[in-house]
Amino acid sequence: MREFAKAETFIYDAVMKKVIYLDNASTTSVRPEVILAMKPYWSENFGNPSAITKMGVLAKQTIEKSRQTVVETLFRRPNEIIFTSGGTESNNLAIFGLVNYLERQERKISSLHFITTNIEHSSVTECFKELERRGAKVDYLKVNEQGLVEPKDLRKLIKPNTVLVSIGYANNEIGTIQPIRELAKEIRHARKNNKIPSENSSERLGTPLSGEDFSDGIFPLFHTDASQAGLWLDLNMNQLGVDLMTLDAQKMNGPKGAGVLFVRVGVNLSPIIFGGGQEKGLRSGTENVPLIVGLAKTFELARKDWGKKNKKMKIIRDYFWQKIQTKIPNAILNGGLENRLPNNLNISIPEINSEFLVLCLDEAGIFCSTKSSCERDAEESFVVKALSREEWRAQTSLRFSLGENTTKKELDYVVNILKNEVEKQKLAIF
Amino acid sequence: MREFAKAETFIYDAVMKKVIYLDNASTTSVRPEVILAMKPYWSENFGNPSAITKMGVLAKQTIEKSRQTVVETLFRRPNEIIFTSGGTESNNLAIFGLVNYLERQERKISSLHFITTNIEHSSVTECFKELERRGAKVDYLKVNEQGLVEPKDLRKLIKPNTVLVSIGYANNEIGTIQPIRELAKEIRHARKNNKIPSENSSERLGTPLSGEDFSDGIFPLFHTDASQAGLWLDLNMNQLGVDLMTLDAQKMNGPKGAGVLFVRVGVNLSPIIFGGGQEKGLRSGTENVPLIVGLAKTFELARKDWGKKNKKMKIIRDYFWQKIQTKIPNAILNGGLENRLPNNLNISIPEINSEFLVLCLDEAGIFCSTKSSCERDAEESFVVKALSREEWRAQTSLRFSLGENTTKKELDYVVNILKNEVEKQKLAIF
Repeated sequence: MREFAKAETFIYDAVMKKVIYLDNASTTSVRPEVILAMKPYWSENFGNPSAITKMGVLAKQTIEKSRQTVVETLFRRPNEIIFTSGGTESNNLAIFGLVNYLERQERKISSLHFITTNIEHSSVTECFKELERRGAKVDYLKVNEQGLVEPKDLRKLIKPNTVLVSIGYANNEIGTIQPIRELAKEIRHARKNNKIPSENSSERLGTPLSGEDFSDGIFPLFHTDASQAGLWLDLNMNQLGVDLMTLDAQKMNGPKGAGVLFVRVGVNLSPIIFGGGQEKGLRSGTENVPLIVGLAKTFELARKDWGKKNKKMKIIRDYFWQKIQTKIPNAILNGGLENRLPNNLNISIPEINSEFLVLCLDEAGIFCSTKSSCERDAEESFVVKALSREEWRAQTSLRFSLGENTTKKELDYVVNILKNEVEKQKLAIF
Repeated sequence: MREFAKAETFIYDAVMKKVIYLDNASTTSVRPEVILAMKPYWSENFGNPSAITKMGVLAKQTIEKSRQTVVETLFRRPNEIIFTSGGTESNNLAIFGLVNYLERQERKISSLHFITTNIEHSSVTECFKELERRGAKVDYLKVNEQGLVEPKDLRKLIKPNTVLVSIGYANNEIGTIQPIRELAKEIRHARKNNKIPSENSSERLGTPLSGEDFSDGIFPLFHTDASQAGLWLDLNMNQLGVDLMTLDAQKMNGPKGAGVLFVRVGVNLSPIIFGGGQEKGLRSGTENVPLIVGLAKTFELARKDWGKKNKKMKIIRDYFWQKIQTKIPNAILNGGLENRLPNNLNISIPEINSEFLVLCLDEAGIFCSTKSSCERDAEESFVVKALSREEWRAQTSLRFSLGENTTKKELDYVVNILKNEVEKQKLAIF
């Protein structure tokens, strides 16, 4: 595999099938079936879904059919799906959409309390930082050594004015899977204590969820960024217990620019982007029919046999980790091996320069990363720092995020190259 | 052309080339060259532009090359282009981005004054309505019988606390082209009177534009929604005199989901979507490489010989209008024939039911509209109402927006069908 990597002109078009892409947490390639599904919508069925002509009606029907496909993978109802331009926008809509709604209800930002964790993706964290700038109170749950949030810690943090808890389903750097159902139970417990006062009370926070226990309050709401979970984890919305969920096609072998915000029936949001009132008023702008069709096909393929694919992937990932341990015995796993995305391996190797290592692997046709792409300019992984509390581990982290088609043979090659490069670095002086 | 239109199963995939699409103001079909340009970026060069690997670097370079292409069509510098998810988002970013920036400068929304017109697209108008809800003052310029804003009217409305003037370049319903340069002159004049007070003054509104007269104030800023102008009008940003400009690929025979906000050097905005800090912090979220490449190709093709295409289109449109006048003498043109997009014809015919007429034309394979798709549920065109002040004209408007390849022969067919349908309606009782 080395010959093309050494070539001066590295043309990806020609060689992509030969390289080993282990950066699927960053973004994924689009499946051929998805590209094919989008095809008729660029220049044939290209109508504006709001047009009253047949072309418009066809476009509208196409969107609703896509919504149906998506919602079936979540075991829920079509009117709970908002199509967005991606995971970042979905997270922003969940958080600021709620804030905008509450502000319209005459609630001051300074009276609102939020809870999130200290390992969220920047598209969640930066929203909360902005809310803090605007006067809101935000508490950041700490994760344990395994990278997990403890439900009892959440219970302690919830206050009567907590309106939103946002905890990522699976972490983008270390792949740790949070106990969403247990966390949801804590939130439901808090809601019971947060009963809705009478109509004319200034304490009144909103209307209850339809179909839920009407004597309970509806706050805090529970949002989860499930962008990394789409390919691998249970997304049965009748059991997860969340009110708002972000999903992103580009992390599921679908197109960039297509995301979903699941909004449980009865949850009120206001828009963050204003205009023609598309997507129940929550996302104005001409609906992106081709990408929505692509997203639906992505969901259909990603959710088919996800459990089987998960098990298969886990075996391959565990093989990879075992090989690494054999060849590089001082490598440390960041986060536990249990409760972890089956395609994620995040390790730290003492005294290496992990950024340089990524570039060396790159030369050998292997793509991986040190941390989140969205934290490109940071000097260390704040996620690994949060769980390990150790500088060196945060500075030497390496993230491998495997794909469905990654093979053991490819990983043998990766481990060999990795071992060589680590040894080379030990001999060199940095 | 009637045979397929009468067929029970109207399959667009097969017949799109045979139908007459005169709804280009709503959305356009994507050019084959654009589809081809996007192709390698779905599953081959699909890397995350923030990744440090070669794939990431290649993606980043691709974006910057695309930015260069776009900016060359505007005769400006690459650091003035922000890629967004479309025209609606660009308009929102221009307006709320400024508001968010000013709020960070401790300016209260209630102290801000804005000016727009009473014929803007909903993605501008709804932003201002939201700002009014939040306490800002907004003045709405009235258009004259030709659908045009008078620069002297703008002058009268500008106040010392006017921070933004937003006036669409060409209207989406009636195609009238506003005198942007003259309006820009009024704004520059106002800036001269709005000199920046000393550093410690609470009146200080911001820093001046680099390369501009430093003794002038920078407010009001001038934003124009040029979504409808992309294919047909002068976009030389050195001469237009605007600070912020919205463009949308889907109105220029490019993909949906890809827009541009031109932000003149020195103009400060804060983000409306938070996260990884892409696009100079103004638009977080993984950059949509395929759509950005598609947008760049769209701009390249759209801006090539736009002047010639404009002249050619105008001849065909004028022919269309002449034919209509001959066959349907009581048809009235909404807006003047001068200062109008060369592909737009918006007419009112007394006593017709224009929505029913659109559906009848639809049956004959002709696609047009009554008004903006984004105003689908409105009972009349607020734009036609604004210029004509006549109910009947607002209720009977028909918009034809031609495409580059629309032929006189096709329009002959359209006029015949139109005449027949109008006569049928006269005989029927509604």
